Amino acid sequence: MDKPQFDPGLTQQYTGVLKRAINPNGQFNVRRTGAGWRDWHPYLFMISTPWPVFFLLILLAFLVVNTLFALAYWAVGIENLKNAEAATAIETLLNAFFFSAHTLTTVGYGNMWPVGPLANLVAVFESVAGVLGFAIATGLMFGRFSRPSARFGFSKTMLVAPYMGGTSLQFRVVNRRSNNIIDLEARVLLMLVEFNEEGVPHRKYSQLTLERPSVLFFPLTWTVVHPIVEGSPMWGKTAEELERQQAEVLIMMRGHDESFGQSVHARFSYRYDEIVWGAKFATAFELEENGDLRIEVDKVSLTMPAELPGKQLTDAAADGR
Amino acid sequence: MDKPQFDPGLTQQYTGVLKRAINPNGQFNVRRTGAGWRDWHPYLFMISTPWPVFFLLILLAFLVVNTLFALAYWAVGIENLKNAEAATAIETLLNAFFFSAHTLTTVGYGNMWPVGPLANLVAVFESVAGVLGFAIATGLMFGRFSRPSARFGFSKTMLVAPYMGGTSLQFRVVNRRSNNIIDLEARVLLMLVEFNEEGVPHRKYSQLTLERPSVLFFPLTWTVVHPIVEGSPMWGKTAEELERQQAEVLIMMRGHDESFGQSVHARFSYRYDEIVWGAKFATAFELEENGDLRIEVDKVSLTMPAELPGKQLTDAAADGR
Amino acid sequence: MDKPQFDPGLTQQYTGVLKRAINPNGQFNVRRTGAGWRDWHPYLFMISTPWPVFFLLILLAFLVVNTLFALAYWAVGIENLKNAEAATAIETLLNAFFFSAHTLTTVGYGNMWPVGPLANLVAVFESVAGVLGFAIATGLMFGRFSRPSARFGFSKTMLVAPYMGGTSLQFRVVNRRSNNIIDLEARVLLMLVEFNEEGVPHRKYSQLTLERPSVLFFPLTWTVVHPIVEGSPMWGKTAEELERQQAEVLIMMRGHDESFGQSVHARFSYRYDEIVWGAKFATAFELEENGDLRIEVDKVSLTMPAELPGKQLTDAAADGR
Amino acid sequence: MDKPQFDPGLTQQYTGVLKRAINPNGQFNVRRTGAGWRDWHPYLFMISTPWPVFFLLILLAFLVVNTLFALAYWAVGIENLKNAEAATAIETLLNAFFFSAHTLTTVGYGNMWPVGPLANLVAVFESVAGVLGFAIATGLMFGRFSRPSARFGFSKTMLVAPYMGGTSLQFRVVNRRSNNIIDLEARVLLMLVEFNEEGVPHRKYSQLTLERPSVLFFPLTWTVVHPIVEGSPMWGKTAEELERQQAEVLIMMRGHDESFGQSVHARFSYRYDEIVWGAKFATAFELEENGDLRIEVDKVSLTMPAELPGKQLTDAAADGR
Repeated sequence: MDKPQFDPGLTQQYTGVLKRAINPNGQFNVRRTGAGWRDWHPYLFMISTPWPVFFLLILLAFLVVNTLFALAYWAVGIENLKNAEAATAIETLLNAFFFSAHTLTTVGYGNMWPVGPLANLVAVFESVAGVLGFAIATGLMFGRFSRPSARFGFSKTMLVAPYMGGTSLQFRVVNRRSNNIIDLEARVLLMLVEFNEEGVPHRKYSQLTLERPSVLFFPLTWTVVHPIVEGSPMWGKTAEELERQQAEVLIMMRGHDESFGQSVHARFSYRYDEIVWGAKFATAFELEENGDLRIEVDKVSLTMPAELPGKQLTDAAADGR
Repeated sequence: MDKPQFDPGLTQQYTGVLKRAINPNGQFNVRRTGAGWRDWHPYLFMISTPWPVFFLLILLAFLVVNTLFALAYWAVGIENLKNAEAATAIETLLNAFFFSAHTLTTVGYGNMWPVGPLANLVAVFESVAGVLGFAIATGLMFGRFSRPSARFGFSKTMLVAPYMGGTSLQFRVVNRRSNNIIDLEARVLLMLVEFNEEGVPHRKYSQLTLERPSVLFFPLTWTVVHPIVEGSPMWGKTAEELERQQAEVLIMMRGHDESFGQSVHARFSYRYDEIVWGAKFATAFELEENGDLRIEVDKVSLTMPAELPGKQLTDAAADGR
Repeated sequence: MDKPQFDPGLTQQYTGVLKRAINPNGQFNVRRTGAGWRDWHPYLFMISTPWPVFFLLILLAFLVVNTLFALAYWAVGIENLKNAEAATAIETLLNAFFFSAHTLTTVGYGNMWPVGPLANLVAVFESVAGVLGFAIATGLMFGRFSRPSARFGFSKTMLVAPYMGGTSLQFRVVNRRSNNIIDLEARVLLMLVEFNEEGVPHRKYSQLTLERPSVLFFPLTWTVVHPIVEGSPMWGKTAEELERQQAEVLIMMRGHDESFGQSVHARFSYRYDEIVWGAKFATAFELEENGDLRIEVDKVSLTMPAELPGKQLTDAAADGR
Repeated sequence: MDKPQFDPGLTQQYTGVLKRAINPNGQFNVRRTGAGWRDWHPYLFMISTPWPVFFLLILLAFLVVNTLFALAYWAVGIENLKNAEAATAIETLLNAFFFSAHTLTTVGYGNMWPVGPLANLVAVFESVAGVLGFAIATGLMFGRFSRPSARFGFSKTMLVAPYMGGTSLQFRVVNRRSNNIIDLEARVLLMLVEFNEEGVPHRKYSQLTLERPSVLFFPLTWTVVHPIVEGSPMWGKTAEELERQQAEVLIMMRGHDESFGQSVHARFSYRYDEIVWGAKFATAFELEENGDLRIEVDKVSLTMPAELPGKQLTDAAADGR
């Protein structure tokens, strides 16, 4: 029996033009169809939708419920809403609408009020519905506001850099925020397209061994290094081969965020055309007079040319950054 | 001393007619008696009960508390509730009830209001009780709404499929929602009924080794594969033997849901009569013109016949899906 | 250099009369002094204090804040509180107090209202303070209500039971609630008092190896078994020796509660006088006619006599349960 | 290829005057520049800022929103706010401001109320904005109040103490609060400054092996011990060498807090001048008459002189504590 190949959960089969596996925002190029309404989770939708959509939907829901209760007061008899009756039907209906709003939001000015058991009952229902309904809206509001997220700055390019007498594949990452991230781990995969005997392409994934797969603290930059030693899937590869094989390096990071009190994740990828041969990262921080380290987060991408052992400096690395 | 047998926490002893160990909804066929009221946790009940029961209980609780405070105003003397006195006792009591509702929900129209220290004190108590009581109701409301859950689509059947020159036991799973699940793990157990020398049946559990026990990403389908190699409890088993032994394959999955920011779990099981011999899964996704992958979640169950090595294609696999 | 002894974080040094290390409620017999007010965390106190104390403190806080604002209205001039002035100073002050309550709880009847900038400003402050203050009260309220907890039923006694031709130390545990607990782990320590050459007692801890340290599911009972084999600290021990050494078995359990969506913990301990020699646990569940298993949670303690290999049945086990 | 050196995520390169790596409050001496507004997370800021700043910002936000809506009523026509018109424009504007506050906080006295569709619509918007806006404020309020934190007391000094016939590096830690912390882990790093052949300093980090890297319970003190055996980076080091190498011992602790139901972290460090040679910790607890252990949390720093094998007692340890 043959040994199966490593697959991180993206497919190996693939025909036609290839898009990158992971987009710069960490998402996959996958569209999902056939899911029914039972698969839809309103919380998941409302927590992920953009803010304008969120506010629009909250407002819409408010208007619908508010109008329904206004109609209920109308049905029960608008004469049971003290001070709501006005010259025209429109004005009276508007009054019912506004009274409904006073009740739903529990603001309850009292310029209008329900009279008699029926209108009163509707008002009781509405105020309870208001409290429970706004529980969803306010919970979502704060949930969105306080949602954990990582804001990592990845270097614009990956480097093939000199390392311990040999070469290595490197990228650099920085926490763009000033909150503490601890126990940060990186996992790095190399994806290559290979062709079988019939010429059918398939993707091949290999996990790249890292110099250090995790750091305890993350106040500065972290240069994640894969030493290109024998046995590495990068061993002996040239820039041309990586392009021919549509190479993409997939990166997953996970750490514990002390301010959110939760784990945060980040995904990123570099394609063959984002790999610079013969360069190394320049220091992104400097020592201030008071002894503090000052780190400039945008310098995470700052590189300088570096001669690879037994290899001429490539042009790409000459202009740095 | 003999070696103990593996038990995942379900029993080995078992007499009489067997039901499946895990229901399609992930629950066990176990009923619990003898627990007292001290074992009862109102939160656990309220968070798990169906929505209609939840709303009914919230409404009931509201009505009870509301009525109790209405009676308190009555006891204190309804003349201390300005504008509450009406022609009949019923109407007056209703007014007390509605004033109580205005206070409990903090809507406070002000068409009625308490006069004198006693009625005022009851109103103060009621409004504080209202705020604290609705804290429970609204917390539960949002807790239910935002409760993490996984919505995994499992293939309708498990397959005995050709694999690497031999055979394997396979099922396929898809995330029916479009949120990101990462670091998804699967654990698969085979449960067989065996008879000891006295003919007493007992259940025997074995963990099935998987081709890959976890995937890093889950945007597509994941075909979970147990290679049937020597040493596997499935080695040499036939469909007839699995039926005779009342075989059931128990599946536990766990992943990290990036939208909920929490781990999600799913349980599932296949019985002997849900295993198809001689079939393989058909691809559930296709490449769109723009380079996206389009996955149809219902195709997770789509199979096609596949000849097993040294074995005729079974009829069951011929009709696919 | 000698090898250090295992210590779970309880002390080894110990002179004088010994109390048990872990109380039946899972707490330790330790009192803490010398902590200052900066070490005090109001949340930790309010979330752990009994319900009556909690309500009393909430009410007290409400009364204090309410009174302070009432005095502020008085200071600003009670004539700025429309309808608050009454025949006596006491009545007027009470009116200020009740108006303050209307504002703090945002019930706002409107039978009284502030007039002029100063009284209005105090009212604005008070309503904001009310909203923010009740955020603490309601958060605590729901936090207490929804606080994760495990309700495990431990067997009243630990057993030395026959096991695989030898003997074993066993206890049994059941989930007294009907929510799902998965991936339940047990860790068991034996604590013995030993005397050094100078006759000074010290506690010695050893971790007991378990037949299975965890179960995947927990719908039934779990009999946690330590096989007494050579190398076990229980090997060759008699009931008399355990008593002389003041033996206590410490138990820690941890599982994932699917309803709380969080890990839950339980601690328990058995002393030498809670260990029964020569007994085994009787089945706590039975098969119902519909094929369900019915488990009676109180039967978790049900034992029956069982002859130990090469040992007479002890009296203690004869009366069971 | 050479072996890379261990780096916990702090830098190895370092020129100029050295500050300590970890401050007593657990923070690093790093300043971050170049981050843009997109990197700024309002939740992270509001949850971490000091309480006075927090309240000031909440109040400011309230005033701004309140004033904006007051201006909206003014724009719509103050005659649409019943009872708001006053003798002077200032007074009228103040009335609009106070009515706005009644609406934003949903207190709604009803001494003023909106008349006509436009003013009413603004009021509806404002009350909804109030409910949603206060969701952020109250969520932050409770989030800050209930934020998990550990309050560990570390001994003022680290000790080089006699241990098992040799020596060891020790510090002691206590939970200054009375809540339960379980499964507490410690990781300890030694940081030394070394000079390469060109005289350029760099930091070298080594993980110190601990006698026991974790404890199950933490009701008492925990003396964390690094045995100084051959192979330890402390082996053969003198106080003078540690000073010359600017030694700093970095400490990370992590445990599960049962009251917060979450993991808590603590960081600390000792510099060469906080290490006392030839001392040991004195017991910090005593047995009370009722059998309880009484621990005095401030005694965590209490030391007594102890002769090191083959070494005179240092003066520093002579005065204890």
